[in-house]
Amino acid sequence: VLNHYAFDPVAFLRDFWQKRPVVIRQAFIDFQDPISADELAGLSMEAGVDSRVVSRFAGNWDVEHGPIADFSKLGEENWSLLVQAVNEHYPPAQELLRAFRFLPDWRIDDLMVSYSTPGGGVGPHLDQYDVFIIQGTGSRRWQVGEPGEHVTHCPHPDLKQVAEFSSIIDEVLAPGDMLYIPAGFPHAGDTTHEALNYSVGFRAPSQAELISALADYALEHDELQHRFQDRIDLLLNASKTELADHEPWHLPPEIVAECRNLMLAALNNEQLLHKVCAELFSKNPRPPLPEWPAQPYTASGVLYACQRFEILVKAVGVRMITTTIDEQLFAVVQGHWYPLDSDAEALFGILCDMTD
Amino acid sequence: VLNHYAFDPVAFLRDFWQKRPVVIRQAFIDFQDPISADELAGLSMEAGVDSRVVSRFAGNWDVEHGPIADFSKLGEENWSLLVQAVNEHYPPAQELLRAFRFLPDWRIDDLMVSYSTPGGGVGPHLDQYDVFIIQGTGSRRWQVGEPGEHVTHCPHPDLKQVAEFSSIIDEVLAPGDMLYIPAGFPHAGDTTHEALNYSVGFRAPSQAELISALADYALEHDELQHRFQDRIDLLLNASKTELADHEPWHLPPEIVAECRNLMLAALNNEQLLHKVCAELFSKNPRPPLPEWPAQPYTASGVLYACQRFEILVKAVGVRMITTTIDEQLFAVVQGHWYPLDSDAEALFGILCDMTD
Ligand SMILES: O=C(O)CCC(=O)C(=O)O
Ligand SMILES: O=C(O)CCC(=O)C(=O)O
Ligand SMILES: [Co+2]
Ligand SMILES: [Co+2]
Repeated sequence: VLNHYAFDPVAFLRDFWQKRPVVIRQAFIDFQDPISADELAGLSMEAGVDSRVVSRFAGNWDVEHGPIADFSKLGEENWSLLVQAVNEHYPPAQELLRAFRFLPDWRIDDLMVSYSTPGGGVGPHLDQYDVFIIQGTGSRRWQVGEPGEHVTHCPHPDLKQVAEFSSIIDEVLAPGDMLYIPAGFPHAGDTTHEALNYSVGFRAPSQAELISALADYALEHDELQHRFQDRIDLLLNASKTELADHEPWHLPPEIVAECRNLMLAALNNEQLLHKVCAELFSKNPRPPLPEWPAQPYTASGVLYACQRFEILVKAVGVRMITTTIDEQLFAVVQGHWYPLDSDAEALFGILCDMTD
Repeated sequence: VLNHYAFDPVAFLRDFWQKRPVVIRQAFIDFQDPISADELAGLSMEAGVDSRVVSRFAGNWDVEHGPIADFSKLGEENWSLLVQAVNEHYPPAQELLRAFRFLPDWRIDDLMVSYSTPGGGVGPHLDQYDVFIIQGTGSRRWQVGEPGEHVTHCPHPDLKQVAEFSSIIDEVLAPGDMLYIPAGFPHAGDTTHEALNYSVGFRAPSQAELISALADYALEHDELQHRFQDRIDLLLNASKTELADHEPWHLPPEIVAECRNLMLAALNNEQLLHKVCAELFSKNPRPPLPEWPAQPYTASGVLYACQRFEILVKAVGVRMITTTIDEQLFAVVQGHWYPLDSDAEALFGILCDMTD
């Protein structure tokens, strides 16, 4: 568990979150790896698990995507294995995420776990997202640079790296230490002794993703159906006695402005945006897991099961939020809406409070 | 050709366009059908042509989608054949659209041609788009009602109709007559003698379509990549000494407001919106036609062909517009951009002025 002497979420949020990178020594006391290197390798051999081996032999970077068939050819140096969403594929690892609930649940993307051999790592790079990297077994030297105009290159089609950078952080992490890196800060981890690293990744929707979610919602629900109307002053002259002097194939900026107004008006629909965000944030960013029920429970189905004292288990990776629209509180579970009365609210809170 | 004594585009735009339906008697003098019923039937038998036969036998509505294999079983009454984009599949029909160039080219969707037998028609319905219906051979009685809360029903899954309405227009059209119906006005055509009707349909992007085009453009071109950032006042109390009192699973309206601000900021990128609209309006709303070149011409390819006195033919259905961005005039052809100098502008104008 989080060591509240070493890691004070209040000071952290105030001074570092989305501002500056920082190393927190012994953020976790007596840190115990929630997964072993062997278990991690086992996961990476499964279909449906997003994993990759990144290696550099004789100066050549290579990336092999999972499922990984065979580790024996890799030897003991210069490679690392990275597995995404270990919290979903190996539920005991979910516990680690509990430490980050000073942030809203929906902001968390997944727990990525890496196993690196000496010389292994993905090279210097930067990410679009904030990340906490917790050192498990072993140790790694992490360097972090300033954000800015870093030129990226791809030594392998699946590997985007940045050039050398001068470090503002250069530290060797020991088990239980944690490094926080805001989005856009270049970083590189060098491995001296074989090591497990736990990356708590965040999701932060971009403008493009939000607009895309709005478009999908509108098309699915037949919303935002106001249509373009011609402006008569673009078709006729000022006294409306003659056709405006126009080439029918020309697109003037006034038409673009009309389209912009239509889009702006769409964004005035606050309730619609609320629904779009709620559905987006209530959905796991990855595809459904095979263990999820084919059909979501209906409200009456849940009630019926409770009345029969059936045990309902939260499926791993299912996301849920609550939100209030028009003074009605709803639970939104993977995009499905359930109105909550005050009893249900209390029960649902208990369910949300569990981290699997 | 348009009869300018009967149809005055200036008066029409001022008094009727997107306001009120109207019948224009003898909008075309000596109207000659650009296509015959047999040719239309022939088109409907081709794969890749969007056609349907709508019939009502013994009170049962039916819809058969093209390619239509056999007309012989249909008999002589109570059905009609409708073929979309006849202007593209049968280029001589494109000429008819020239009469509507008092509106911007991009606004025109297609020329739909219907052949109806006595008793045939699609039933009372309303459309999301403006339409001109020109009477060719034969005659039909058209009724148009007021817009409003018309209850729709589907007597067949592919047929959306409205209930009876009281008419504000009730006229029998003769060859060369034209009926204009704004979007949302219910209408029904009854056929007394077998008839050809020409529908000039318009496109008018909805808010949802515009937003969807913006999202697609942004995702394709890696634009609008600003990402959500947490508001510290939602995470900490006012004096920043304690975590804000929050349930990590709750989505408060402030987060939605932040997302809205991100989307609003996206709409401030006027140049981006200009590009999105230009690409959207320069693209034929239907899939590419088989006769289109697999690769679009490059600017130097066009030049090279011209220097060799090759004959370049505009492929049927290809859409093109011009637009000015940052003081540079561009031709945009099916989403491909070509900067135009003043010579090229003149040439391109001639090309655009042709209606195939
Ligand atoms: O564990 C690693 O080697 C990579 C970690 C990393 O760069 C990250 O999580 O952003
Ligand atoms: O020609 C027909 O029967 C249908 C025409 C029509 O309703 C339309 O074009 O909107
Ligand atoms: Co990284
Ligand atoms: Co219609």
